[in-house]
Amino acid sequence: MGTLIETSDLLTNTVVVLGTVAWAVSGAMAAARHRLDWFGVVVLGVIVAVGGGTVRDLLLDLEVSWIEQPWPVFLAAGVALLTIPPARRWATAVDQWQIVLAADALGLGLFTVLGCDTALHAGTSSVVAVILGVMGGISGGVIRDLLLTRTPVVLTGEIYALAAIAGAVAYVLLLRTSISPVGALWIPVLLTFGLRAIALRRAWSIPAARIDRDGDG
Amino acid sequence: MGTLIETSDLLTNTVVVLGTVAWAVSGAMAAARHRLDWFGVVVLGVIVAVGGGTVRDLLLDLEVSWIEQPWPVFLAAGVALLTIPPARRWATAVDQWQIVLAADALGLGLFTVLGCDTALHAGTSSVVAVILGVMGGISGGVIRDLLLTRTPVVLTGEIYALAAIAGAVAYVLLLRTSISPVGALWIPVLLTFGLRAIALRRAWSIPAARIDRDGDG
Amino acid sequence: MGTLIETSDLLTNTVVVLGTVAWAVSGAMAAARHRLDWFGVVVLGVIVAVGGGTVRDLLLDLEVSWIEQPWPVFLAAGVALLTIPPARRWATAVDQWQIVLAADALGLGLFTVLGCDTALHAGTSSVVAVILGVMGGISGGVIRDLLLTRTPVVLTGEIYALAAIAGAVAYVLLLRTSISPVGALWIPVLLTFGLRAIALRRAWSIPAARIDRDGDG
Repeated sequence: MGTLIETSDLLTNTVVVLGTVAWAVSGAMAAARHRLDWFGVVVLGVIVAVGGGTVRDLLLDLEVSWIEQPWPVFLAAGVALLTIPPARRWATAVDQWQIVLAADALGLGLFTVLGCDTALHAGTSSVVAVILGVMGGISGGVIRDLLLTRTPVVLTGEIYALAAIAGAVAYVLLLRTSISPVGALWIPVLLTFGLRAIALRRAWSIPAARIDRDGDG
Repeated sequence: MGTLIETSDLLTNTVVVLGTVAWAVSGAMAAARHRLDWFGVVVLGVIVAVGGGTVRDLLLDLEVSWIEQPWPVFLAAGVALLTIPPARRWATAVDQWQIVLAADALGLGLFTVLGCDTALHAGTSSVVAVILGVMGGISGGVIRDLLLTRTPVVLTGEIYALAAIAGAVAYVLLLRTSISPVGALWIPVLLTFGLRAIALRRAWSIPAARIDRDGDG
Repeated sequence: MGTLIETSDLLTNTVVVLGTVAWAVSGAMAAARHRLDWFGVVVLGVIVAVGGGTVRDLLLDLEVSWIEQPWPVFLAAGVALLTIPPARRWATAVDQWQIVLAADALGLGLFTVLGCDTALHAGTSSVVAVILGVMGGISGGVIRDLLLTRTPVVLTGEIYALAAIAGAVAYVLLLRTSISPVGALWIPVLLTFGLRAIALRRAWSIPAARIDRDGDG
């Protein structure tokens, strides 16, 4: 079967839209939680949303995707702006960092598969596609946490890198079967998201010591 | 009207020299304030001064400018060395972080216009040129603050990203008029610098809580 | 004399293997010291080990080396895994950060020479090759310290950037003599490593104030 990029523009663009929204929400909520003003929220939302794809494109020596097609930058800016009012309202009701990590888990799944697919489309071997998928998946969160001077969640989060590796390996294997593109896309995304969700649920039932140990509480 | 790079080598090199000096002073003063020794001051001065242009060139898939022409590396190293004695003398007299931010405001204006111009020259649309101008403008300060483990000023500073966007938009619009290259260059630079200067003055009259909230005081 | 890459595959691969092992140990020990779990140790070991070469290849617009040949990624992951048991055992016996810095000194020497050599092979001038050698040499440690939210050792370490510059200049000069490739390689590596070792010994005899001033103690 061909890669996603070759098979379906609709599915590829769906992944880019959902992934951009997920990372923009993750970046904007994290910024709001750190009490940045609205400039900072929008800037962080945009950098986090386009950062992972930028790292992937630079590593593969492809044209950076938002230079060709800048709409994800504006989508991310709009989503970040829309995130500000609920971020302020929820501040007292729920732990915003859990929302950051939930959006992060979705972005991780989507950008891992997209990174894998982009690498295969660019002609890399399956093994290298898995590595680039993981890099593309984790980079958004790494950039978010670096800019907020937090230890990146990929280093401290339970089953974070492993969830990305599982999704990337599943995608590479499913592409070799006769499964439909829809299945080849969503099974790995849900696998990565599901593994992270289980890890987060486990962490949520434990007192906050672990997640907040970077002094972010 | 053609871009700056096409129109005038003298003006382009003036921007590179002034921007390199501004970022080198900003990086070196920040390093001195964090009590790094002179090796650290020079290294930070150089990385900050050439970092913004490097990010811009990598995103545009151009040859990194200092690999072709390494003189800005030596200019930045020299400026950083010269910054050490006044940095030590001023330490007790004025708040050095204000000098860092003033030099940063000048570098922001110059590298935003230069980034815009480089992108237009490389054939991007006006919208993408604005985005790349902002990225080229803010990257020097982001690198400086990341290396000093501070939250980047682009996230916390008032009217920082907006000042860069204003300068970039002004430059793109002025290039379409029949204004002289000198005007097309300096009006946006002064616009960005002026907006930042106003924001800094306002912050200076407020107790230091805001600017120093990263525990850097 | 030709560059190392042109002269000897065996010597070049020896440098890549030793440098990858050194940086993987440095990243993994640093991760273990920061009490990351084993996922985090492996992820940091891999990112630190391949990060310096990735930065070098991106700056030179070469294909990123581990995309062509991914074995250093697996070597680094294996070394990081093997580092976990001794890292736990030594935790109470010795100051692990000293082991991090010793491995860092070896990686610095090897990747500085390799960066220089790669730049010369890509056709840069000697001066630019020295700058790229230093960048390739310091980037692994910068990435490690950024991800752990520490001020990079290149900014705070005594004689760190200078040791890299000395090694890079020595390599460029030795390549112009009729010295054997083995000598041209190992003399600069030992020079950089030796200068760092002397600086570390001096720091070790002083109370920990300096090295631990980032609050990492």
